[in-house]
This record gives sequence, structure tokens and C-alpha cells, in this order.
Amino acid sequence: MQFTSEQRLDDGILEREFTLGEIPGILWTPGSASAPVPLILVSPPPLGLRKAYPRLLARARQAVAEGYAVATIELPWSGDRPRSAAADQAVTDLHRALAAGGPVDNEIVDRLILPLVDKAVPEWQATLDAVLSLPEIGGPVGYSGGVIAIGLRLAVVEPRIAAALLFAGSFVPRSMLEEARQVTIPLQVLLQWDDEGNDRQLALDLFDAFGSKEKTLHANMGGHTGVPQFEGDAGNRFFARHLK
Amino acid sequence: MQFTSEQRLDDGILEREFTLGEIPGILWTPGSASAPVPLILVSPPPLGLRKAYPRLLARARQAVAEGYAVATIELPWSGDRPRSAAADQAVTDLHRALAAGGPVDNEIVDRLILPLVDKAVPEWQATLDAVLSLPEIGGPVGYSGGVIAIGLRLAVVEPRIAAALLFAGSFVPRSMLEEARQVTIPLQVLLQWDDEGNDRQLALDLFDAFGSKEKTLHANMGGHTGVPQFEGDAGNRFFARHLK
Repeated sequence: MQFTSEQRLDDGILEREFTLGEIPGILWTPGSASAPVPLILVSPPPLGLRKAYPRLLARARQAVAEGYAVATIELPWSGDRPRSAAADQAVTDLHRALAAGGPVDNEIVDRLILPLVDKAVPEWQATLDAVLSLPEIGGPVGYSGGVIAIGLRLAVVEPRIAAALLFAGSFVPRSMLEEARQVTIPLQVLLQWDDEGNDRQLALDLFDAFGSKEKTLHANMGGHTGVPQFEGDAGNRFFARHLK
Repeated sequence: MQFTSEQRLDDGILEREFTLGEIPGILWTPGSASAPVPLILVSPPPLGLRKAYPRLLARARQAVAEGYAVATIELPWSGDRPRSAAADQAVTDLHRALAAGGPVDNEIVDRLILPLVDKAVPEWQATLDAVLSLPEIGGPVGYSGGVIAIGLRLAVVEPRIAAALLFAGSFVPRSMLEEARQVTIPLQVLLQWDDEGNDRQLALDLFDAFGSKEKTLHANMGGHTGVPQFEGDAGNRFFARHLK
């Protein structure tokens, strides 16, 4: 992990960009802390870190103000990272299916999501290794984001993640519904009730499938980008129950 | 409205029992307040006030600590109020249908719930008249409870109620799904995902039907009585957004 830039934001938060091999990332930490702080991994939407920066920063500020460190990395094939012809083709096929107004074939969802999950999850684990080796950051670790299938797989395979706030706003391969039964950590799942590109019933089925004893669904009105402000506060309170 | 007893609880809260005509009720107010406080109507489960008292008091304490007054009244045909042969018959028929493991006929639900709603709603409105006439209590008014069909009807007909926290844990006549579209106030709806006596799909349909622009569903694991403690806090934060 190599830090490539460092700046103090107006509220004293330290923002450091880094690279982990070829993967760019950002780490936000409190201006001052007397003991190692817990960590929240914030997974970006698949827009690229640069485009998602304003909303990532807003979430980071909320979390850092509550005493957490926040780390994020660029997803595979996003932003300035090398593209994948297969992923591009899957996105094209997805957009074509959505434009045709029909349901999206499971086969397209599998091609779009499964390789992304397989590549992203070890990258988040390597990020955890690197960030947790910094003396100012301790555990426990929360995960908040992003592409829900990545969060699902991480919750299954990464024992250092103690609680996850997931956004049911992206496609989930049907094969992963079974995998969801293996998740046992506390979950809070956000659902936008009228999310244009998202299958509400599949999201409810996924919520039902998670094996966790403590899982809460927060469903709100509106489309994909309409998550209400107050869910930021609700997310903080969820993490406070499990990471503090 | 006649006060029949008055006591200071250990944390300074003033608890007053009252009768409104033949209807018993309880009012909790902060130990001291410099200005009129907003009001939350807490509707009891249909157990009778006496049996429900411990949990009503716990909810009242949480709310009064946040600066609200809390009022509750006995539901029709509950507790020490005169019984209704028709209501008793409907409960008997309901229990028989549940014991047989079959679905509960809409006709039984209608006989159970519609007369209760028709009788209870004007009583809650009379309670509002009485409680809001006290100088120490102002508006706005929140509603929290109980039998969800009563909350639904109140949200439609009573303009003084500014926000409602509803518990989707009791039967709703199908005819009231249409009425739900007329609800426009902010709602937070609690659903216990594995509620034994409750139809999950009907609860989701009801949530979908509410006409409110701001409505949030909080679904948690467990049965009817398993609402997690942290939903008390989430309810306070919902009311803080709308009543303060």
C-alpha cells in the first residue's frame, strides 16, 4: 500500500489517496484519535471513484465524525483501471435488455456480476490486510456499499467483517440466493421501493434468504438514487450497535 | 376528561390516569417543560391497558425522555370496558380458523376489525380534543401503535396527526387497502418477518398501497412479539424528524 497524496479537509479529516498494486483507493481518518479506530469499508457504485467521489466523501464525513476510519477502492474495470471486453459486452447486453423493456436474462446477470464478484472480493480482502496494518486503525470492520453481490460474498468469506449495510439496488445472480443463506453477520439492507432497474421481489427474496439472525430491511420510496438522507443516520446507528 | 389518579415516577415523569366518559386512559408528561410539548398517541395492543401497561410505560418513558407527552386509551371491548358479543364471536371464529391452520376468511377479518375501527377512531379523536386542550400539551401529534387498521383510518380522517409509526402485525380488511391510498402523512411501518398470525404478503401490499410520499418499512426477524429494542430508538428519530 503506497500513499500517493495526503490532505487535511476543512473539518480536520485526513484524506489519503493510495494505490494497492494497480488499484487506486482513498482512506479517510479522523483528525485526531487517541486509540485505533474501527473501520468501515465503503464500496463505491460502479461509476468509478472519480465520479462517485462527492457521495463517497459525504458518507465518509458522516462516518469519520462518528469515530470511524473509512476506506474505499476502485472496483475492477471501473474508473481508470483496465477495462474488460467481457464486462463491457455484459453491460451492453444488459442495457439492450433494459431498453427493450423486457426482463433481464439470468445469463446476462451472471456474466455481469459473477466475474466482478470473483475479482473484487480478494481485492477488498487485500485492502483490509493493508489498512488494518496501519497503527491508527483497529477493528472491528463494517462493510457498506455498493454492488450487493460483492457485499454478500465478502460477508460469507471474510470473518473480519462484523456487520454489513447493503444496498439492494443491483442485480444478483440467482445462484447467489443460496449463498446468502451462509451469511450470519448482522445486516441492514436498504431497498428503494421503486428502483427502476431492480427487481423488488428478488430483493425481498434475497433479504429472506440471508441466514443472519439480526437482519433489518429498510425500504423507502423512490428510485435508485433516491435513498433518503436519514438513512445515513440510520446506518451510523446500525454500525454503532455492532462496531463499538 | 377527568383525572382519577396522579403520581410522579422515579424519573420525574408525571403519570395521570383519566376517564373520558366510560373510557379509561393514561397520560404521561415530562417532569418539567417550559413550553407546550408535542404529543404522541400510543395505541395499546388489544390486551387491555392493565396487561399492556409494562410495555406501554416503557414506550412512554422513551418518548417522554425525548420531550413528548404520551397518551393512551383502552380500546373498545378491551380491559374493563363492556364486552361485545359480536366481537367475542369474531375472536372465537378467528382462533378456530388459526387453530385449523387454514387461512383466515376475509369475512372473519371484516367482522373482527371493521366495527373496532368504526368505534375506536372517534374515541381517539375525542381523546385528542381533550388532551390538546391541556395547556402543557401542544402539537404536532404523532400516532404510534397498535391495531394497524385503526392507525390507518386515523391517518386518513384526522388532520391533526402529522406522522404515524404503524405496526403491521394485525389483520387488515382487504377493503382497507384501497383506503390506504388516501394516507399522505409520513409513515414508518414495522413488520416482523416471521409473525405467526400475520400475512407477510398482505403487509407488503399494504405498505405498497399507502399513498404517503415518505414511507419507510422496517422489517426485522422474529415473531410477533420480537420487535427489536433498537426500533424504539428508530421510532424516536422518526418522530423527531416530523414533530419537532
